[in-house]
Amino acid sequence: MSARRFFVEGAHARGSRVIITGGDARKIVSVLRLGDGDRIEVVDSTGAAFDARLQVDGGLVEATLVDVLERAPDDRRSIDVAQAVPKGTKMDFVVEKATELGAAAILPFYSERSVVRDAGAGKAERWRRVAKAAAQQSGRRNVPAVESPIEFASLVSRFSRYDLVLFPWELADRVPLRETLPALLAGARRVLVVVGPEGGFSHTEADAATAAGGRTVWLGHRILRTETAAMVLLAILEYV
Amino acid sequence: MSARRFFVEGAHARGSRVIITGGDARKIVSVLRLGDGDRIEVVDSTGAAFDARLQVDGGLVEATLVDVLERAPDDRRSIDVAQAVPKGTKMDFVVEKATELGAAAILPFYSERSVVRDAGAGKAERWRRVAKAAAQQSGRRNVPAVESPIEFASLVSRFSRYDLVLFPWELADRVPLRETLPALLAGARRVLVVVGPEGGFSHTEADAATAAGGRTVWLGHRILRTETAAMVLLAILEYV
Repeated sequence: MSARRFFVEGAHARGSRVIITGGDARKIVSVLRLGDGDRIEVVDSTGAAFDARLQVDGGLVEATLVDVLERAPDDRRSIDVAQAVPKGTKMDFVVEKATELGAAAILPFYSERSVVRDAGAGKAERWRRVAKAAAQQSGRRNVPAVESPIEFASLVSRFSRYDLVLFPWELADRVPLRETLPALLAGARRVLVVVGPEGGFSHTEADAATAAGGRTVWLGHRILRTETAAMVLLAILEYV
Repeated sequence: MSARRFFVEGAHARGSRVIITGGDARKIVSVLRLGDGDRIEVVDSTGAAFDARLQVDGGLVEATLVDVLERAPDDRRSIDVAQAVPKGTKMDFVVEKATELGAAAILPFYSERSVVRDAGAGKAERWRRVAKAAAQQSGRRNVPAVESPIEFASLVSRFSRYDLVLFPWELADRVPLRETLPALLAGARRVLVVVGPEGGFSHTEADAATAAGGRTVWLGHRILRTETAAMVLLAILEYV
């Protein structure tokens, strides 16, 4: 915990003003010798952290929460992306964009209609380098784990590790995501997004995914390329 | 209007059941000779079009609206994407993804910090070919217009044609989009998304954009590459 980090009881929000009392107030004024306009970090009871600007008036120490540094752990959603390995260098693109858009881990896999059945040795290493470069470029503090490709059956057996598995499928019920996603996301902290190959998932695969708890979702009338679907879902999940 | 398209009074929704009467019912049964399970298109008073499944029981003709084919014109939002021409072949990528994600038109432009100042003759033609291919691939009925590159000042002078101009800027107030976008979008039918070059917009440009009615928005803590920003906004605008 940084010397300038202070805990203030209650759940706060950006823009609100909090009063700092007791030993914390004395530390700010007498030890750190901070004054009007100086910045501190305020952490609230939910674990959310804020960048805060001080107003010091004699012994009265207040802080305005100007920016959220870290959402409360309960709010923070971790999203893994499972992607059927696409043709050519498209997986590089998926890894780059998924990293840029905040994916926690990337799980390449092969499925029934995968054109690519063996990405070849060294591919996972290459994707890890792409993830590292993209993480640096985007200012992320961490690099997403990129696993070596697995079979679809192995992927399905891991669904139980997640609170929610989103399974975009062009044959899913044609209900707009905005009508389904909020309820699906309620309380979901570990989310997996599973994107099929160029030819889509087979019915057998969709059945297996559903049986294992995956939720089929529909991404709209337009046909998205396999390398676009994960990006779209990551952008929406960040927005929601 | 297709022979199987029928107008049914009122504003309807996916899943609802409508009764078809009079000449339309006779046409369905006697002229088109349609029966249980056959599909027709139903248009309601708002202009929304539905894929509908018939139930015919003697003279009683009903239809269940199973899918929205076209939203009511009032609901339909048209989104143009203005993109500062990026380096290399990244504009191809922007055109492809913007087409896939439903952009109505694409406006390439040059700005203060653009590395590329002259995309070269033939580039606009190339982008139009990319748009056409992407439109076909994605099942769109129309191809977005791709204009020839213009200067930033010309772009700004066109802001008044839109109900809303979204101007993502890394120095915008750090308010999450989910807190700002719903109010900005209220009633906005013609929307323009303006994405800056690799080096971002200058303060002068942001001021000019704001003076012309553009609304600066913040896309989050992570730094998005210039070619990613439009995609993210298009995905979110489709979701909202």
